[in-house]
Formats: sequence, C-alpha cells, structure tokens
Amino acid sequence: MMIKVRVFVTYKQSVFDPQGDTIAKTVHAIGHSEVESVQVGKFFDLSLKTTPDQVATVVKDIATNLLVNFNMETYTYQVLEG
Amino acid sequence: MMIKVRVFVTYKQSVFDPQGDTIAKTVHAIGHSEVESVQVGKFFDLSLKTTPDQVATVVKDIATNLLVNFNMETYTYQVLEG
Repeated sequence: MMIKVRVFVTYKQSVFDPQGDTIAKTVHAIGHSEVESVQVGKFFDLSLKTTPDQVATVVKDIATNLLVNFNMETYTYQVLEG
Repeated sequence: MMIKVRVFVTYKQSVFDPQGDTIAKTVHAIGHSEVESVQVGKFFDLSLKTTPDQVATVVKDIATNLLVNFNMETYTYQVLEG
C-alpha cells in the first residue's frame, strides 16, 4: 500500500528565524502591513510502501536519523494520502 | 482578526528535485527501502491581521510578488487557524 506523508521541519520556538524575519520586512515593504510575522520551514513528502500501522515508526526513524537537527529544529507530520 | 496561513512552495512536476533524490538515496542507505521517493519543499507560515474574505487575495499577492519563482515552482496554501 502506498502512503504519502508530509514531514514538516521547523525551528524551535526559542531559535531566531532570520529568514522569516527578513521576509516579513520585505512583505511590509511591498505594502502588506497586515502580515504580523513570517516563519519559514522545510517539508519532505515521502512516498512509503508500507502499512498504516508502520507509518509512525518509519517517519520517526527517518526524521531522527536524517531530516531533523534536534538542536535547533523540531518536526511534525501529516498523512496526505493512503 | 488573526489568521494563520501556511504557504507551500514546491518544484513543478517537470523540474528535477536533486535534493529530494539525494535524500531518497540516503534513506535507502540507512535501511528504509519502503520509501519510494522524496520531494522537498519550503513553507512559509504567515500571521495575518485581516478578514477571512481577504486571505486569498493577500496570499496570492505575496506568493506572486515574493515567495514563488514561477519558472520552476508552484504553490498551494492552507489556513491553519482563524
């Protein structure tokens, strides 16, 4: 069974996000003062050939061993399909 | 009213994603052969002080004029809160 999962990697709340801050300033400069703040993040869409009960284990292992720098980052995920 | 929107920016289907491809290979190397493919993308969380009927217009304008390179990328968005 093919399952599509989106893994979101973001900075921890305590870590300053300079790119988000810069984008927020630029957003204001092009006239969008209604934007209060911007945070940036990465995501990874994984197509998994596995069973639904295995998804949590597989995602945790890949996030922990590859995708996430736990010193500065944290992650969540969402099943898109399957 | 504060509305939180997540804007997802991805490569177009026709554009090769070398980072995703490399991550897929590394995922296999650490033993996860159940992963068929990986695509990477960026997201931007915008906190907007606006009304729900304005969200589509604001997001389209910011995506078009700032966040997205339409030569290679495309975007979608999702209202997280508000």
